[in-house]
Amino acid sequence: MNKIDKYFHKYLPQHKKGKVVVISAPSGTGKTTVCKYLLKHIPNLKYSVSYTTREKRVGEINGRDYFFVSEETFKKMVQQNKFIEWAKVHNHYYGTPKKFVEETINHGQDILLDIDVQGGKNMKKVYPDGVYIFLLPPSLQVLKQRLLNRGKDTLKDIKVRLKNAIKELEYIKYYDYVVINDKLKETLEIIKSIIISEKYRIFRRGK
Amino acid sequence: MNKIDKYFHKYLPQHKKGKVVVISAPSGTGKTTVCKYLLKHIPNLKYSVSYTTREKRVGEINGRDYFFVSEETFKKMVQQNKFIEWAKVHNHYYGTPKKFVEETINHGQDILLDIDVQGGKNMKKVYPDGVYIFLLPPSLQVLKQRLLNRGKDTLKDIKVRLKNAIKELEYIKYYDYVVINDKLKETLEIIKSIIISEKYRIFRRGK
Repeated sequence: MNKIDKYFHKYLPQHKKGKVVVISAPSGTGKTTVCKYLLKHIPNLKYSVSYTTREKRVGEINGRDYFFVSEETFKKMVQQNKFIEWAKVHNHYYGTPKKFVEETINHGQDILLDIDVQGGKNMKKVYPDGVYIFLLPPSLQVLKQRLLNRGKDTLKDIKVRLKNAIKELEYIKYYDYVVINDKLKETLEIIKSIIISEKYRIFRRGK
Repeated sequence: MNKIDKYFHKYLPQHKKGKVVVISAPSGTGKTTVCKYLLKHIPNLKYSVSYTTREKRVGEINGRDYFFVSEETFKKMVQQNKFIEWAKVHNHYYGTPKKFVEETINHGQDILLDIDVQGGKNMKKVYPDGVYIFLLPPSLQVLKQRLLNRGKDTLKDIKVRLKNAIKELEYIKYYDYVVINDKLKETLEIIKSIIISEKYRIFRRGK
């Protein structure tokens, strides 16, 4: 590199570090499907598996969907400062593992976090340069229909979920992007665009 | 729309207005080629033809590349407040027409501005919500080679252009994105991603 290019070089973006990509959404928006799809189609994107004290559901695998731990273990991990952030949601604890996230971004890879709005708000304090995406259903009517269709919840449960969805909307202000999950393919294209474009943001220069 | 969806609706992004997309680059970076390519491949993107007092070059068409006007006409337009911004660059005046830009974004279309760094800085004051992209060559060596290859300039001219390129870098701080124009197709993909993703930025909600 010659002298002028040395000068020039400091203006070029250098992406030594990866970035944190947080996706939050009201329950039933299709966040899990979207995240799986993103991980399949976006190279250089890792998934951060959260820790939780809630019970494992049918089809879930420990270490893939969550690390399922006891409340005792969880609290010990909190004391040992093993989480970037943790929160109590509907009587269960959820935490984002510090070491894995840090190692991933230090290796220059992006890391996807599928966490709730409290988690998103807390992450933003630690990683203000992250990419925060709020996923929404096309309408509450559609959300209700989706919850009815999947047949997992009682009508009472669904009412609670819809109420929660409205509460969660208040957290939108902590996010950078809002994407309506209407058609999965379009949602993927939009989120892909967001992740690509964020790489070229000037404030990331030299990071 | 029922009651809950009325509440929900205020959180959805509504893109009544288009946005300003400004691209600036040191001379020889390939900005004109990139802009032409973007206009061809991105729907809903219009081009803002600037006014200038410089002479028309071979191959340029009045009303397509620039509106070529006399210094007298230009100054009159300045007095009549016809420009969003104008600047004197290398002894010639350049101005961005107010009416066309305003009408385009009011119609919900995005508008592409291919303007110099002074123009970009000035536009940002008027349209802080615009998308400001700084295009760079992979290195000054490459820039020099490109200028030599196109055979339009003397060696003395090229030295001046390289010096100017370095000065222009100081303006990067007024921009949001920096994109290296190495391969045209990749540059297009990146800028396309930027324009798509910016549509979903939360601060644009309701605008």
